[in-house]
Amino acid sequence: MFKVIAKSKKSQARVSRLTTGHGTITGPFFMSIATRGAIKNVSVDEMHQLDAPIILSNTYHLLLRPGVVLMNKYGGLHKFMGWNGPILTDSGGYQVFSLSAHRKITEEGASFKDPQNGQAYYLTPEKVIEIQQAIGSDIMMVLDECPPYPSTHEYVKTSLERTTRWAERCLVYHKKRKSKQLLFGIVQGGVFKDLRKLSAQQLTKLSFDGFAIGGVAIGEPKKMIKKVLGFTTPLLPENKSRYLMGVGRPEDIVLAVQQGVDMFDCVIPTREARHGRLYMWKTDKPKLTSKHTTWYETVNVSNARFANDLLPINTTNLKHYTKAYLHHLFRTNEGLGLRLATLNNLDFYLRLMRHIQEQIKKGTL
Amino acid sequence: MFKVIAKSKKSQARVSRLTTGHGTITGPFFMSIATRGAIKNVSVDEMHQLDAPIILSNTYHLLLRPGVVLMNKYGGLHKFMGWNGPILTDSGGYQVFSLSAHRKITEEGASFKDPQNGQAYYLTPEKVIEIQQAIGSDIMMVLDECPPYPSTHEYVKTSLERTTRWAERCLVYHKKRKSKQLLFGIVQGGVFKDLRKLSAQQLTKLSFDGFAIGGVAIGEPKKMIKKVLGFTTPLLPENKSRYLMGVGRPEDIVLAVQQGVDMFDCVIPTREARHGRLYMWKTDKPKLTSKHTTWYETVNVSNARFANDLLPINTTNLKHYTKAYLHHLFRTNEGLGLRLATLNNLDFYLRLMRHIQEQIKKGTL
Repeated sequence: MFKVIAKSKKSQARVSRLTTGHGTITGPFFMSIATRGAIKNVSVDEMHQLDAPIILSNTYHLLLRPGVVLMNKYGGLHKFMGWNGPILTDSGGYQVFSLSAHRKITEEGASFKDPQNGQAYYLTPEKVIEIQQAIGSDIMMVLDECPPYPSTHEYVKTSLERTTRWAERCLVYHKKRKSKQLLFGIVQGGVFKDLRKLSAQQLTKLSFDGFAIGGVAIGEPKKMIKKVLGFTTPLLPENKSRYLMGVGRPEDIVLAVQQGVDMFDCVIPTREARHGRLYMWKTDKPKLTSKHTTWYETVNVSNARFANDLLPINTTNLKHYTKAYLHHLFRTNEGLGLRLATLNNLDFYLRLMRHIQEQIKKGTL
Repeated sequence: MFKVIAKSKKSQARVSRLTTGHGTITGPFFMSIATRGAIKNVSVDEMHQLDAPIILSNTYHLLLRPGVVLMNKYGGLHKFMGWNGPILTDSGGYQVFSLSAHRKITEEGASFKDPQNGQAYYLTPEKVIEIQQAIGSDIMMVLDECPPYPSTHEYVKTSLERTTRWAERCLVYHKKRKSKQLLFGIVQGGVFKDLRKLSAQQLTKLSFDGFAIGGVAIGEPKKMIKKVLGFTTPLLPENKSRYLMGVGRPEDIVLAVQQGVDMFDCVIPTREARHGRLYMWKTDKPKLTSKHTTWYETVNVSNARFANDLLPINTTNLKHYTKAYLHHLFRTNEGLGLRLATLNNLDFYLRLMRHIQEQIKKGTL
């Protein structure tokens, strides 16, 4: 299912293959965010044109709308949205725990209310697997708690031990159901080295198909992210996928790849596109480093100077549109602008991952 | 430039060919609205896939943003937006006269302020041609005044006579500039038969490339629209294009075609799509009449019943997406929903025009 096919001599970086129910993905890879079963402003055909290897959708959002009953009726998310590539779903834990005022945690699970209409929901580890089976995602995530930053050592410890018990319940329930979906555990432990170690020790004893690092880049200082990543990644087995959840900027991805991470997701390319912020290569053959200024830049296409810029948006997938036109679309609130900016940024991120793979193989990363 | 190639025996309907600087268009045809140089939520590639023969853009909106200086720099609208088919631009008159509190009309022209930032503009017949030449549209419209409904006979008469003088100035200025663009006159006269006649008599003496009927469907009762259309269309020469501005619903288009109109534009398919309203054929081989209920229907895809509807959105350009999915996209405010609904409605309208052409040829309309 998972295989390392090339290793860097300069770092822990590796090129890998992960086989899922909807195809094999070469890593390190990036998962574009389709929160509610659609990449914002982009069609499935366009995702194929971008060579997107996998997308990520959210159990929490799909549970609220359309809900499990309908998802079963639709025959799963692949069929519903018309995407036949791999899909990863997060467990909904992160979203539930963000609803601090609206949720309650017990050993059994977490209850919460839909902030939009007040409807009550109750998530247990078993329920979360059941929902992800209705969705039919290729990679499922366990229900975890992601404590906010900052939290006390005591709270993070209590929380991660419950997260381990939940993870085990997810696994037991999953095994019973005999689906071909993959299931990943999630290492928590906040910014504490001993707790990350504890979490990793407990989880890696269980037969998950891969392991995620959760609770990173949730508000802690940048330096700390690097530190946590530095002592957590080596705790994960070499022969399983390693997934850094919700991270991040291109230079953060390069850093994490160098430490041996294989999988990424982040809202940045799609969300920043909606604010007119474009990710742009500075050169055709970028020498990737974890210091970003040398190889890419971001610009806000709404800035006045772009009214006069007759260069193409990029030289890859949007060479027939000028920056001046995209500027005009943003200035006049035309929806097409959101689409073009998103296509630019996803192209940047997906191309980044292909550059990363090449440079690992070449031994330059 | 304009040629009738088939005439109905049952009505005044005709199939025609209009040659423009960017290709020949078979009429009766529908112009999709690209107000600010973009069809809302739809790309130029998608317009080609829809076989859209021509689009319409707005001088007024393009004058405000990006403005004439930049439009000249961009080398015209075709290049700017990447559309190489024909473009018609309205003159901006309609928009200016809608700004009742913000504009002033004199014999020389109309002054107005941008409601968004207060910047002052001054439109004259000559200026309007100049701007449309910067835009490079294939079909230009004269500056006209469109009096609101209701207006007095006296006011409408004064106004249409000024509109005629403006039309003549447009034509004189256009001839001087020797561009290959076509220029259409606009017949006004409100709901008054004698004034429509007066306007048509004055304008058809001038060597316009085609004639539009303006000031219809601006708030008057439906019956009156039919009446005005009935006594105005025959006033226009048979050997020139006839364009009914801003109309309308599918049955209105059929009615107008039966009276000999060749060209249409309307915001309905794009605007109603943004509210989830879908135009749908009731049958593959519709027998078109000006009574709509027999051959098409509109539905609001946000309605709860569509959550369960696993049928495709339509059987033409969106057969890979279900109505349930489109329902979900609207319920979760996903921008992709706006695009799919718009593609459905434009496909409906463009297909309607092809059905109309076929049925005129067959002698059934």
